[in-house]
Amino acid sequence: MEYILPFQRLVEKFASLRGVGRKTAVRYAFAVLDMSEEEAKDFSDAILSAKRDIHTCSICGNLTDEPICAVCSDEKRDGGIICVVEDARAVIAFEKTREYNGLYHVLGGVISPAKGITPDKIRIGELLDRISNGGVREVIIATNPNVDGETTALYISKLVSAKGVKVTRLAYGVPVGADIEYADEVTLTRAISGRREI
Amino acid sequence: MEYILPFQRLVEKFASLRGVGRKTAVRYAFAVLDMSEEEAKDFSDAILSAKRDIHTCSICGNLTDEPICAVCSDEKRDGGIICVVEDARAVIAFEKTREYNGLYHVLGGVISPAKGITPDKIRIGELLDRISNGGVREVIIATNPNVDGETTALYISKLVSAKGVKVTRLAYGVPVGADIEYADEVTLTRAISGRREI
Repeated sequence: MEYILPFQRLVEKFASLRGVGRKTAVRYAFAVLDMSEEEAKDFSDAILSAKRDIHTCSICGNLTDEPICAVCSDEKRDGGIICVVEDARAVIAFEKTREYNGLYHVLGGVISPAKGITPDKIRIGELLDRISNGGVREVIIATNPNVDGETTALYISKLVSAKGVKVTRLAYGVPVGADIEYADEVTLTRAISGRREI
Repeated sequence: MEYILPFQRLVEKFASLRGVGRKTAVRYAFAVLDMSEEEAKDFSDAILSAKRDIHTCSICGNLTDEPICAVCSDEKRDGGIICVVEDARAVIAFEKTREYNGLYHVLGGVISPAKGITPDKIRIGELLDRISNGGVREVIIATNPNVDGETTALYISKLVSAKGVKVTRLAYGVPVGADIEYADEVTLTRAISGRREI
């Protein structure tokens, strides 16, 4: 063992975070030692409290510390539109745009035969139940633009269409601010086929 | 506020670590939510325990969870040589070489008139006491090669020399594996003046 035990333990905890290498973990562990007793206590509590107090919204599956999340409980939002996303990270990304005024449905994953994730393991049934309750005009499918995301989008779109609700998919194209030179072929092909008159 | 409160709190704690930006902090906070209850508890405990159980060695100032650190309590080390470093991070770096067999003295900073750090605010007195206790043949000064580090090295070397003990400074030169093309002028000048016959 390279370090004294309590330090080693902390380094390992930081290193278990995705994207944190050994050197960075050591740097973070030293940063904790540099904290005041109170700051370290706050940090420790914040981790416990995040795990204890944050759970998923009983309606949409978004993260919340209330029984129902801030989006679902906001009466000013348009309950006729549901944006279907893979996880709560995507909800945060959409909320940052301040443009979307509908509700969400967090699947908690995507269908992935390779990983053994079948449709019943993600929250598709809950989505269909919400639609059955009525009032939904449109379902926007915003799963990630990769194989599993596309499979899931297709699967859901069939089930939702069968209920007579409009299904849309996010537009594909060149990201704003990006250099066309560096766009991959698939994205460019989609950008061309999805071109719009100006 | 962008996020729900317990999440926001955790993001802020991660963001308070040096070198962690907003996006990275959000990523780490999500990683905590993805942990099992037990893993999060362990993480939280590791932070508390690091602060509670780690303190400085009463002899050299190195980090330890015992009254005296592993280096000072190792009877196989050469007590005649003391390597003076700025902080415990440097001790770890030296220990990794597995080449140094003497003891350490952690100053806990460097003299910096600009930051108001005077000689009495770092552990220079303790170093002189150790030397007065006898048995020390050589003091290697390994403060960082910058203005404050040099100032401190010079200050300490005068006091230690006055006690009749040999004082040395780490060699300067081109880092092993580095490209001379990219070495700065000061380093190259030092590398030339410190050249050795082969």
